Amino acid sequence: MEISVHSLAVGLDTVWVLLCAALVFLMEAGFAMLEAGFIQSRNSLNIIMKVLVDCAAGMLGYFAAGFALMYGADAAGLIGTNGFWVSGDLSHLNLKIPIYAFWLFQAAFAIAMATIVSGAVAERMKFAPYIIFSFVATVVIYPLAGHWVWSSEGWLNQLGMLDFAGSAAIHALGGWSALAAVWVLGPRTGRFNKDGSANVMPGHNLPLAALGAFILWFGWFGFNPGSTLSGLDTNIARIAVNTNLAAAAGGMAATLLTLFRYGKADPSMAINGALGGLVAITAGCAYVEPISSIVIGAIAGVLIIAAVPFFDSLRADDPVGAIAVHGVCGTFGTVAVGVFAEKGGLLYGGGTDLLFIQLLGVLAVSLWGFGATYAAFSALKAICGIRVSVEDEHEGLDLSEHGITAYSELEYGALKPLHHPILRTTPLAAKEEEIRSV
Amino acid sequence: MEISVHSLAVGLDTVWVLLCAALVFLMEAGFAMLEAGFIQSRNSLNIIMKVLVDCAAGMLGYFAAGFALMYGADAAGLIGTNGFWVSGDLSHLNLKIPIYAFWLFQAAFAIAMATIVSGAVAERMKFAPYIIFSFVATVVIYPLAGHWVWSSEGWLNQLGMLDFAGSAAIHALGGWSALAAVWVLGPRTGRFNKDGSANVMPGHNLPLAALGAFILWFGWFGFNPGSTLSGLDTNIARIAVNTNLAAAAGGMAATLLTLFRYGKADPSMAINGALGGLVAITAGCAYVEPISSIVIGAIAGVLIIAAVPFFDSLRADDPVGAIAVHGVCGTFGTVAVGVFAEKGGLLYGGGTDLLFIQLLGVLAVSLWGFGATYAAFSALKAICGIRVSVEDEHEGLDLSEHGITAYSELEYGALKPLHHPILRTTPLAAKEEEIRSV
Amino acid sequence: MEISVHSLAVGLDTVWVLLCAALVFLMEAGFAMLEAGFIQSRNSLNIIMKVLVDCAAGMLGYFAAGFALMYGADAAGLIGTNGFWVSGDLSHLNLKIPIYAFWLFQAAFAIAMATIVSGAVAERMKFAPYIIFSFVATVVIYPLAGHWVWSSEGWLNQLGMLDFAGSAAIHALGGWSALAAVWVLGPRTGRFNKDGSANVMPGHNLPLAALGAFILWFGWFGFNPGSTLSGLDTNIARIAVNTNLAAAAGGMAATLLTLFRYGKADPSMAINGALGGLVAITAGCAYVEPISSIVIGAIAGVLIIAAVPFFDSLRADDPVGAIAVHGVCGTFGTVAVGVFAEKGGLLYGGGTDLLFIQLLGVLAVSLWGFGATYAAFSALKAICGIRVSVEDEHEGLDLSEHGITAYSELEYGALKPLHHPILRTTPLAAKEEEIRSV
Repeated sequence: MEISVHSLAVGLDTVWVLLCAALVFLMEAGFAMLEAGFIQSRNSLNIIMKVLVDCAAGMLGYFAAGFALMYGADAAGLIGTNGFWVSGDLSHLNLKIPIYAFWLFQAAFAIAMATIVSGAVAERMKFAPYIIFSFVATVVIYPLAGHWVWSSEGWLNQLGMLDFAGSAAIHALGGWSALAAVWVLGPRTGRFNKDGSANVMPGHNLPLAALGAFILWFGWFGFNPGSTLSGLDTNIARIAVNTNLAAAAGGMAATLLTLFRYGKADPSMAINGALGGLVAITAGCAYVEPISSIVIGAIAGVLIIAAVPFFDSLRADDPVGAIAVHGVCGTFGTVAVGVFAEKGGLLYGGGTDLLFIQLLGVLAVSLWGFGATYAAFSALKAICGIRVSVEDEHEGLDLSEHGITAYSELEYGALKPLHHPILRTTPLAAKEEEIRSV
Repeated sequence: MEISVHSLAVGLDTVWVLLCAALVFLMEAGFAMLEAGFIQSRNSLNIIMKVLVDCAAGMLGYFAAGFALMYGADAAGLIGTNGFWVSGDLSHLNLKIPIYAFWLFQAAFAIAMATIVSGAVAERMKFAPYIIFSFVATVVIYPLAGHWVWSSEGWLNQLGMLDFAGSAAIHALGGWSALAAVWVLGPRTGRFNKDGSANVMPGHNLPLAALGAFILWFGWFGFNPGSTLSGLDTNIARIAVNTNLAAAAGGMAATLLTLFRYGKADPSMAINGALGGLVAITAGCAYVEPISSIVIGAIAGVLIIAAVPFFDSLRADDPVGAIAVHGVCGTFGTVAVGVFAEKGGLLYGGGTDLLFIQLLGVLAVSLWGFGATYAAFSALKAICGIRVSVEDEHEGLDLSEHGITAYSELEYGALKPLHHPILRTTPLAAKEEEIRSV
Repeated sequence: MEISVHSLAVGLDTVWVLLCAALVFLMEAGFAMLEAGFIQSRNSLNIIMKVLVDCAAGMLGYFAAGFALMYGADAAGLIGTNGFWVSGDLSHLNLKIPIYAFWLFQAAFAIAMATIVSGAVAERMKFAPYIIFSFVATVVIYPLAGHWVWSSEGWLNQLGMLDFAGSAAIHALGGWSALAAVWVLGPRTGRFNKDGSANVMPGHNLPLAALGAFILWFGWFGFNPGSTLSGLDTNIARIAVNTNLAAAAGGMAATLLTLFRYGKADPSMAINGALGGLVAITAGCAYVEPISSIVIGAIAGVLIIAAVPFFDSLRADDPVGAIAVHGVCGTFGTVAVGVFAEKGGLLYGGGTDLLFIQLLGVLAVSLWGFGATYAAFSALKAICGIRVSVEDEHEGLDLSEHGITAYSELEYGALKPLHHPILRTTPLAAKEEEIRSV
């Protein structure tokens, strides 16, 4: 077999994209552990099963139809029209790598969007309707937004929107979908008091949640640099560095802020701060300088601290902070491109054109995610119900939905009541006090 | 230094194989966590130590001799004869990559086969004889089967058997070895009742088991595509997609089947369904279409549901389902190549020639694994004993074999009794009811 | 875009270094889980937060200044002088890959060194001063040692010291820094008795620690082979194999030694034996034969068994064994290059020149690490205090420093007392008996 420079280039790019796709896939393990650790043990297996369903149903749905609606031949800038089962004429994609490598990378993105919602609806959503939602999210909700932003003929792409690896198309979409979902679903029983104050329901296994966060950070080294689709792109190194610095800055900002404000550095906030930094830099990682990444990440860390109690005050019960991390930081990160982009950013003399396009783009994507998820959840609620009974919620979804507990040797009766007086003196309690006083 | 197209090709292939080897190595972490989570806490550290021994003793044994018997110059199609300590004339391998890259990838495969058995013998096998078995498995049992299937002069390879990444040579071999091992070893005390019915002994940490499963799925992105040994092989992308789709289909099939049949989706089955899909596609991932991968994976998911209670009814006590996942699905996946292969498969007009070769091949490999392991375990039983005392089994192997417990702060007395009445209403209990009525 | 052989080479090397950097980054997850699992649950979240701070503050510090002091234009062989914020003229590095790829790989190394210390000071060090130390370590302590060893003008490099991936510059530096830190900090309350004997304080979650060890082993496939900075280096495969074999030999040596000596294979020792093997081969992985790697790894495994009780006898309280693993095995591994190196090693007719250089080099680096950390910890002790109160130590640092517990559903009162009579019959107890009789 003759080896040419061209075949080497294709081989290198394919190897790069496949390995990055594997890293992005591993993020599902990260999400599963993060979410399981941040909630009560009695529901932890259920949330892991939901993430597994994203990997299973989501992959199949995105293969059968989601990919086609996202990357098929464009109709009106709104939707793709061919490529079902990843077959047919997809030459308009002008891919240098095999179509299957491209699909795998995109599929790992698609299921990430669905999984963002899974965390927000934890501890009270039925399992069967979640399967349907996971399918809808990967077949319709995400592909349409993705088409607008990333298909060459998509209307937002045509406007010049910049969203390199998906602060808008994945994270803002997923985060605001999560907000819609929790509003239709309602808060966990006992989460909010009649006077509007909130009760802390601490995660049962924070080391596991932290492991999830480390895995997510690791996976982001595939998520962002891999979005070049080419190992020959000389920008991949800077993209990786930007990704990393934003995570560091977000984690540090949240750590120091809670340390100075409450005297104790809050682990949940530190973890979500780092993740918020990663989410925020995802749009701009290919367009901004490293120093800007630090600024963007640090702002994201601060936003997390502000957003978590804010959504509590709206009675939007999000056990893992998905709306703050993905919705708020994804929106901020998309807009930040209009400020920090070396080409077109406000700070680089580019005026406000790009900034407005970014605002419009993230608004359009977010409204679509919110609206479509609101509709889907409302339909599921009407058809089959989406919420477990209060008895099942008390017993735990692991038993009610799966007939088994996560930790078979721990007595259910050993679980503590929901109110943890000891937490009254902590950052989370302080946060709670603020909400109480609203 | 002059860089040529040739040296670039070698470099790319080496990078690809080394990174895939690392992914396959990480599967040991996946196995360790999966197995530890699926068993009782009192034996969880022991199983992890056994997996660590596979990594340690197995790697050393495969370096000293196993590799030579597998890939050394052929004798009679049965065994390799040189290459001990990975030295000497190995030019017959016609490798384009460095021999050490090839060895590392193969070594990660070898220890995977040994580890499959470790799970099945969990909770009652002594530690010291396991070390010897791990050595025997990586030095003799696996290398011979591997030689037959993958050495260019191996008799099954010469017949035309297709087993791309080892549904037969690793998984069926390991799975049926596991069956032999558990038959020699006997079931855990209290596992089966006198009337033939089985007691459920639920895993102590299912989130940990699920983490293991996600890691295994991730590692399979190295296992299957890496088996090309070349990043320039344009098939690697489709192989990765096939791998992924089979896992998704297997997980989905097991999830939906238990959901519809019992009203509750069973997490253990869902996990093993996904793993079964991965095992089943391992032989054919390079030869079949993606749609066939979905079919193969889905069938594997169904097989898991049927096989787990079947082996219970045979009193083959396999705490983690290794025989079902690796034995049954590995065998099925090997045979499925004869049906679904684009070249030679029954459905593609290839007739039954390939199908019979596949059947013969997996039968030969499985009988060898079963027989050799039966002999090895019987010999170890006669020489030094392989089973801990009932007292040690009750106390747990962590204490009896390693003098320490996995979770030092949890009181041993807090562990529940073996019978879990609460599980009577679940899928696993239903499974048990069937066995009871056999 | 025209693709040239040159751009392909740059692309391949960049892909290789970025993916290896990601693997090295993941080692932070490994360290976090290893350390958390090896200590008491009440301090486990605190140690994870410290590792997260290494990732956050460490990355930022190494970006702003550490990298410049390490790889900036040389002054007197002692320190770099430019390249702050990874900008300015760094052409003296003669890099073929983008500077940001080089930085990311180096940054992942820098934070690893800081994290080594975090484990040794676990369970009693305040959080806020640790943040400052993490910053000092990545900005000053590590960069200076790294400059001496790895900068082309560094004085140890000029002498001909060989430390391929950092047995000295990272591990010995970190390990002896850890010794200084624990001496300034003092042992945990209740760790040593008045008669000089030691009490065992077993880790609360050994499966989690084992997961950390597997992740570290996996990450080392990036750590060592990635240090070539080139996927075209034909030595990368042998480096990976050497790395792997040393880990296997270290793990096996520690397993068999404790098995034969105490009748029970000790999991903590097996894990640290494997890690010790990895640390020891890090200096020589590019210079020695695989068989030498097995010898080096096995010796490291034996050293672990001897070193852990030795440091106990010095009342150097190191909850995770970091001094033994990184200090002792890093030192040994550096010296071993002088014995086993194919070019210049004593056993290969090279005489003692290289051996003395290696001794001098590791001595210089170790003294620097010990002295600088001793000074830093002493200064922090004088300024703000470094140790939590005895009350906080009893309550646990998770509550006192972070206001939350790792496992919210486990009652604090359920924790066992520090003395575990059941462990008296185990290897660790035997070790303790020896210390008692000193």
